[in-house]
Amino acid sequence: MKTHDFGSYPPPHSPTSVGWTKGQSVELFSAGRPLVLEAGGVLGPVTVEYETYGELSAAGDNAVLVCHPLSADAHVAGWDTEAQSRGWEFRQRKPGWWDTVIGPGKAIDTRRFFVVCSNVLGSCYGTTGPASVNPQTGKPYGLTFPIVTVGDWVRLQASLLDHLGVGRLHGVVGGSLGGQQALEWALAFPERVERCIVLAASPRLSATGLGFNAVGRHTIMTDPGFLGGNYYGAGPGPGNGLAAARMLAHITYLSDEAMHAKFGRRLRGKAKPDFGFDVEYEVESYLNYQGQTFVRRFDANSYLYITRAMDYYDAADWGGGDLIKACSRIRAKMLLASFSSDWLYPPGEVRSLALALAACGRPASYLDIESRYGHDAFLVETEQVSRILRAFLNQESAP
Amino acid sequence: MKTHDFGSYPPPHSPTSVGWTKGQSVELFSAGRPLVLEAGGVLGPVTVEYETYGELSAAGDNAVLVCHPLSADAHVAGWDTEAQSRGWEFRQRKPGWWDTVIGPGKAIDTRRFFVVCSNVLGSCYGTTGPASVNPQTGKPYGLTFPIVTVGDWVRLQASLLDHLGVGRLHGVVGGSLGGQQALEWALAFPERVERCIVLAASPRLSATGLGFNAVGRHTIMTDPGFLGGNYYGAGPGPGNGLAAARMLAHITYLSDEAMHAKFGRRLRGKAKPDFGFDVEYEVESYLNYQGQTFVRRFDANSYLYITRAMDYYDAADWGGGDLIKACSRIRAKMLLASFSSDWLYPPGEVRSLALALAACGRPASYLDIESRYGHDAFLVETEQVSRILRAFLNQESAP
Repeated sequence: MKTHDFGSYPPPHSPTSVGWTKGQSVELFSAGRPLVLEAGGVLGPVTVEYETYGELSAAGDNAVLVCHPLSADAHVAGWDTEAQSRGWEFRQRKPGWWDTVIGPGKAIDTRRFFVVCSNVLGSCYGTTGPASVNPQTGKPYGLTFPIVTVGDWVRLQASLLDHLGVGRLHGVVGGSLGGQQALEWALAFPERVERCIVLAASPRLSATGLGFNAVGRHTIMTDPGFLGGNYYGAGPGPGNGLAAARMLAHITYLSDEAMHAKFGRRLRGKAKPDFGFDVEYEVESYLNYQGQTFVRRFDANSYLYITRAMDYYDAADWGGGDLIKACSRIRAKMLLASFSSDWLYPPGEVRSLALALAACGRPASYLDIESRYGHDAFLVETEQVSRILRAFLNQESAP
Repeated sequence: MKTHDFGSYPPPHSPTSVGWTKGQSVELFSAGRPLVLEAGGVLGPVTVEYETYGELSAAGDNAVLVCHPLSADAHVAGWDTEAQSRGWEFRQRKPGWWDTVIGPGKAIDTRRFFVVCSNVLGSCYGTTGPASVNPQTGKPYGLTFPIVTVGDWVRLQASLLDHLGVGRLHGVVGGSLGGQQALEWALAFPERVERCIVLAASPRLSATGLGFNAVGRHTIMTDPGFLGGNYYGAGPGPGNGLAAARMLAHITYLSDEAMHAKFGRRLRGKAKPDFGFDVEYEVESYLNYQGQTFVRRFDANSYLYITRAMDYYDAADWGGGDLIKACSRIRAKMLLASFSSDWLYPPGEVRSLALALAACGRPASYLDIESRYGHDAFLVETEQVSRILRAFLNQESAP
């Protein structure tokens, strides 16, 4: 544990930290009784990586499921005991990705709630994905991995909760692609969700969002290192393509205002430009860094599968294309929050979900939170997000 | 000329077309008296490709210079006689890129004005650029081509106008990167510009814009076909990287609203998704097409040089970083127009230029044109753009 660098982050022994954590793993489904996927494939057995914090109450009624966005993982709070031995060194310098809101006394208070977060199917942090070995062939799946959807993720999470003895969720919470999972929970398992919190996520990705994902996948799949997805143990892999995809995605996570405040047109470590194609501006240096660090920690095939799931998701599918009809299934109390400068899941599209819920008389609160941090605001605006999470999770349950 | 396909475009014999056009070319500067570039390099001789329409008046006072955006060229109106023989087949299916506003009776009326447009230095449509042969080595420049700037482009245009016998410009007009050239004209040659029209262009690119350009160059320069820029006659070239850069850029040229109206989430030629990584959505098909056609018509090195010039441009440099001080140099009547949904050169940043002009008492008009077409609006909103071009170009000259 000496290898961890707590920096300015609250260390594991701080009173509001969940402390040292350890990934857990369970095998669900089987070759004989596989998980049947929305797109038609089957998978079994499926390994699910997850973490839990706090204690499940005797009545089993205090569970809060946290759903992670695109490139995150099950390690949502505290410090990872096994970061180094599992090859996930980036976890040695940072606590879990949403440590700011989860812990003793925090908005998602682990003294009261049993918090669960699992890595999504198709990802590369312990749950079965394209880098996993296909038991049929003894080789990594690569692009033979079946297409997975947000609906599949949620049904797999439901199996995990069955395994953990959690029936009805006190709450399900997520931001971005995690927010779409939270919404899918309310739609797919209406009787199993008491409260649903959807942050910075709309019922479906816009054409612009589809376009950005398409470019990201193009850069990966045309990288000669991609080798049709069979790059495991064979050469350097599609690092340049994956880096480009991540650089591009990073721009979409920030607002123009945030980019201006963070970088402006400042040159990187020089008073005058060098006039060439090496890094001139701070923003170039930042994007390069984001691209390079991502390549070291994420699998390119997982990026393909997860962005495709993001593309396909449309909450209105539950109503045959009619969002209002879809929403009429929902029984959970809903809290939706958009962020004013988010242009990946813009306020107007989150609001359309609030309007659909209102149109079918479902109890929903909708807030547009003023923020200059763009899509990333759900991770950055800790104070505002904590306030609404705390208030909503502590509302009295329906009698 | 049988090879041309006029489609639904006004053919060369229509009364408002400038008709058949033919690129012209002139060699300016020389090895002994080279063009000295802002970034420190020198070039000489320099070939400049240009087109003209209409007649220069005896007094030489009716010239309008049109400046082209990033990927365009000198062929701004009419139909190119030599499209096929010069290998520029894309010109056989379309008239010049701004034919909608230039011609007899059109907003830039060639019955009255002598219209000039030249291809910028570093481009790939006839003017000297990285694909040109370096007379010193007998080989294409590639990345040994010097860095060029918007300021260099304007000084080269000034030399061309000297050659054509044009002294003071009745007007200079441009959109996007062409708008920045128009602005640079008013700053660099205050006595030589009577009217300056800047469309969809701000005094400098934002951090977001710098970021998008950086990702585009990353995809080109990491493409193994790039070969350090020496791909001429050596392999397939960095087509995948250039396509990705163009796909990405295309998203920035449209607004979210335009993308939604044009594509939404419609599937491409199918009722249900195939669930895979081939094209599923219309927007993917569109971006792929844009990427592929661009690769056939544009040089990747030119893309690097021109986007870098776009990065470096900052009108405030004329005032040592102070935009108001810079603007105080200007003597031209200025017309600025932004487009409400443009997020590459957003209205707020165009407005900052209008405010700077106002602050130093320069005569300027500023309009924010309501449009859903994003940055592309300056090319698409023909009626609104024509109205302001016509009114402004026909204003009485100062006594």
